[in-house]
Amino acid sequence: MTHTVAQLNAAPPAEAQALLGGLYEHAPWVAAHAVRSRPFRSLADLRQRLREAVDAASPDDRLALLRAQPELAALPQCSPEEAGRLAQQNGDYSARFGFPFVAAPRGARGLELNGGELLDDLARRLDNPPDAELQEALRHLHRTAELRLQERFGEPALGNDIWDWQERLSAHSDPGYAEKGQLTVTYLTDAHRACAQRISHWMRDCGFDEVAVDAVGNVVGRYRAARPDAPTLMTGSHYDTVRNGGKYDGRLGIFVPMACVRELHRQGRRLPFDLEVIGFAEEEGQRYRATFLGSGALIGDFKPEWLDQKDADGVSMREAMAHAGLCIDDIPKLRRDPARYLGFVEVHIEQGPVLYELGLPLGIVTSINGSVRYQAQIFGMASHAGTTPMDRRRDAAVAAAELALFVERRAAQDADSVGTIGMLEVPGGSINVVPGECRFSLDLRAPSDPQRDALVNDVLAELAAICRRRGLRYALEETMRAAAAPSDPAWQQRWERAVDALGLPVHRMPSGAGHDAMKLHEVMPQAMLFVRGQNAGISHNPRESTTSDDIQLAALAMQGLLDELANETTT
Amino acid sequence: MTHTVAQLNAAPPAEAQALLGGLYEHAPWVAAHAVRSRPFRSLADLRQRLREAVDAASPDDRLALLRAQPELAALPQCSPEEAGRLAQQNGDYSARFGFPFVAAPRGARGLELNGGELLDDLARRLDNPPDAELQEALRHLHRTAELRLQERFGEPALGNDIWDWQERLSAHSDPGYAEKGQLTVTYLTDAHRACAQRISHWMRDCGFDEVAVDAVGNVVGRYRAARPDAPTLMTGSHYDTVRNGGKYDGRLGIFVPMACVRELHRQGRRLPFDLEVIGFAEEEGQRYRATFLGSGALIGDFKPEWLDQKDADGVSMREAMAHAGLCIDDIPKLRRDPARYLGFVEVHIEQGPVLYELGLPLGIVTSINGSVRYQAQIFGMASHAGTTPMDRRRDAAVAAAELALFVERRAAQDADSVGTIGMLEVPGGSINVVPGECRFSLDLRAPSDPQRDALVNDVLAELAAICRRRGLRYALEETMRAAAAPSDPAWQQRWERAVDALGLPVHRMPSGAGHDAMKLHEVMPQAMLFVRGQNAGISHNPRESTTSDDIQLAALAMQGLLDELANETTT
Repeated sequence: MTHTVAQLNAAPPAEAQALLGGLYEHAPWVAAHAVRSRPFRSLADLRQRLREAVDAASPDDRLALLRAQPELAALPQCSPEEAGRLAQQNGDYSARFGFPFVAAPRGARGLELNGGELLDDLARRLDNPPDAELQEALRHLHRTAELRLQERFGEPALGNDIWDWQERLSAHSDPGYAEKGQLTVTYLTDAHRACAQRISHWMRDCGFDEVAVDAVGNVVGRYRAARPDAPTLMTGSHYDTVRNGGKYDGRLGIFVPMACVRELHRQGRRLPFDLEVIGFAEEEGQRYRATFLGSGALIGDFKPEWLDQKDADGVSMREAMAHAGLCIDDIPKLRRDPARYLGFVEVHIEQGPVLYELGLPLGIVTSINGSVRYQAQIFGMASHAGTTPMDRRRDAAVAAAELALFVERRAAQDADSVGTIGMLEVPGGSINVVPGECRFSLDLRAPSDPQRDALVNDVLAELAAICRRRGLRYALEETMRAAAAPSDPAWQQRWERAVDALGLPVHRMPSGAGHDAMKLHEVMPQAMLFVRGQNAGISHNPRESTTSDDIQLAALAMQGLLDELANETTT
Repeated sequence: MTHTVAQLNAAPPAEAQALLGGLYEHAPWVAAHAVRSRPFRSLADLRQRLREAVDAASPDDRLALLRAQPELAALPQCSPEEAGRLAQQNGDYSARFGFPFVAAPRGARGLELNGGELLDDLARRLDNPPDAELQEALRHLHRTAELRLQERFGEPALGNDIWDWQERLSAHSDPGYAEKGQLTVTYLTDAHRACAQRISHWMRDCGFDEVAVDAVGNVVGRYRAARPDAPTLMTGSHYDTVRNGGKYDGRLGIFVPMACVRELHRQGRRLPFDLEVIGFAEEEGQRYRATFLGSGALIGDFKPEWLDQKDADGVSMREAMAHAGLCIDDIPKLRRDPARYLGFVEVHIEQGPVLYELGLPLGIVTSINGSVRYQAQIFGMASHAGTTPMDRRRDAAVAAAELALFVERRAAQDADSVGTIGMLEVPGGSINVVPGECRFSLDLRAPSDPQRDALVNDVLAELAAICRRRGLRYALEETMRAAAAPSDPAWQQRWERAVDALGLPVHRMPSGAGHDAMKLHEVMPQAMLFVRGQNAGISHNPRESTTSDDIQLAALAMQGLLDELANETTT
């Protein structure tokens, strides 16, 4: 039988402590600490308090907690060979970190890892710096406790259903990837069209009033308002993926509102506004260089010259659209009239480490960062490393090094700016030659265009100053420039109130990656909600993951936002 | 008719000024300044004073000097197409630097550049930073003045002969390189054996008493002392080259003493010691990994396992030696008895920019630097450049950047230490990914082993500290370690006195590169003399060059050293 948080709040301390006993093995002090902090506002709040209890403990107590964990036994799914490697690597792990390897059952549904995944995880974590691995191991304890809480306080039903939709949709993958068990869904392939079909079908099952695939392949579902002339709230995200990508990137933002509509429909409830849920056909720019094609088409930003682009097999976009039965002539009609829209909201997996490391399931996006990218070269003078004194060098690599440290320092001065030198190379470098050339990339992002531009100006000025001081030349090519999309304050606050109402801390953060909301931003107010990614938030990777517990909270937050908007619109 | 420096010193000012007129076109102030600094100790001293006159002028006067130069007309050797390119690039050059392109006739003999070489030089110099190109252009004016002085005060006869030997020896080159006009002479190839034959022949012509090719291919010439039981002074350098190398690296150290022996023999003069001049067969380790094979054999450091090494074509060293008719069994007999030797001296082209930039023809080596090399990797955590905040990164490249700047700073603290990161790469880096790995090389050198070890310790401690602070791992592999070879003070001072006697400044400097003297250092006192390299001292490159004027001074210095030693030994 399951309990409620209300029962837990009302129970005498000993009983409450018993209800929370064994969540963290051999550590009754965790439950005791949490019980003292009652009442809990929600199950999510309870989970945060348990986590805080561990955070508040002494380093020795945390280490003791980890040391008390049993060594991971070979799983039933392990082959004998895998079991042997597991035992050996378990030993390596204990020797390196001083506590046994612990891994929570993974995935949104708390399903067990298979032997290969477990070994991959262990091998990867063996490479972690000790302080990082200590935090990682503690996160696995928290996740284990979270799963144990499900047994006592009930499963995340909405989250599980959404997770299952994503799992089922990931059965469709492009040829060449599907065979390797990899997920790749690019624009208008068979797998892509199957996804559209599948989403349409589920939308109808959920009770949407209208469901259609539009002229560019977007799946558009509409849950009508009570009144015929009501304004519309748009939400959604994309269903295409990068090559060998994850199951949640984009799709989470389609299925979370889809679940909300299902609940409204089950309750026979209508909102005072139309809810338009869109599965955007294209966001990733993988098959054609036409990023944000799906959301772009809705703001009149579909570029006719894209139609002549060819994919790697020589198939033009026009041919691909004709083959899919899309009506190219209707694309201009997709353009929405902003006057009829309340705004756009989007739920998305974070694709970064922030929420994971902070131990928070949800974050509220303040802005989608503006970015500028460059390819750069510094030219010095190649010379003999032994015979060229330090004060007579024109070392291109040391100049690039100076810039790399400046970028790091300068970006860190701002709140939420980031600067990265991701590509760095001394072409044809030799161990005994002072570098005469250094090539590198620059990626600079900030939550607003002025903040980004100030960052860019400072970095470029420093590059010029470094080269002047060192007697070097440089060349710079701007390869990308994207405007920032700050969240609309009123919409951002609606997400904040919805998250707070769940008993969760309100964590505001920028989005470092681009999203469909950037396009809608050009014509209507928008705001996004981020959901924590597992595995340090890795994305564009098969290891991308999120839990059904976190998805559940995202769905509850969206329900809260819809409810509040309904109240606002009615009153 | 030619004049002497004594005449110049004795002449009335107006006449002296006339004797030096037009060396620097449109700039009588240069000669006037020099005349005021009479008397000149030598032609070399006069050249230094002219240079100092330009150095002492105001920046505006120096610029005016350059601006007054005529634009370089197309040479007679230029093709019409080359002449067209020259005119266009002349224009680019003037626009960039504000003065016309000037290039002294190049090479040791003041021979004219051909059109292609001139265009290459112009294209390369167009890339120079303005301050560097200003200095470069002035050096060309000085070289032009030096050539004009030859017309008035006589040609450098010894230097010209030595330069010609080098030119003629460079006609021999290994197959695959000879066809491209490149110089490559590796151990025991046909070209290498031809070089040995040619050097032997010249040595006999010069009057050496014994000339032989020894069991490893060294060419050994002996000019006997007046008395049969006299001790021996050894000198020499190597005649093998790197691939596509220069004509002077090594060979200068054979031909300078060869010229000295020719002069002694012409004068019918014997020294109170045997002079053993050796052309070492192998120093560069190009065909086999057996660097310093030639000089090593003389100290008993020939490693028998080398014989089984195979070259790129599968030919073992044993087979190559047998093919060349060398008597492998006699190698151990090559070992010299240090008790019979006074010491070892070596003349070598600098292979670095120091003398070139200082405007000095000769330098006295204080030590051959000790060195250590590493291949290093830093491991961080690859993550999304947009979504990973600055304070949550484990950026391997920024850590390497921090180390690069530390190496630069730390090496500069010492006199004559050098530290270089010559290879640097983020493997598989992407513009939007925080580097998870960075690979780089480390080359650390210093004039003494304790100084080198202190440098190495500080750099490795900093690497560890950076990685600890940033939560990164690193791996380090030592790939080379060579002890320093400080010059013997008494022998170094003999070079210093010989250089001073020429009226030249005594400039002491370490050798950043390794030389045969390093091997002899293990058993006897040694000291080296460096000769300025043209083209910023570039070496291991076809652009390696030195002038017959500088070679002349090296030969005079060696004569001075031999004379002094003769006096010491006699008295």
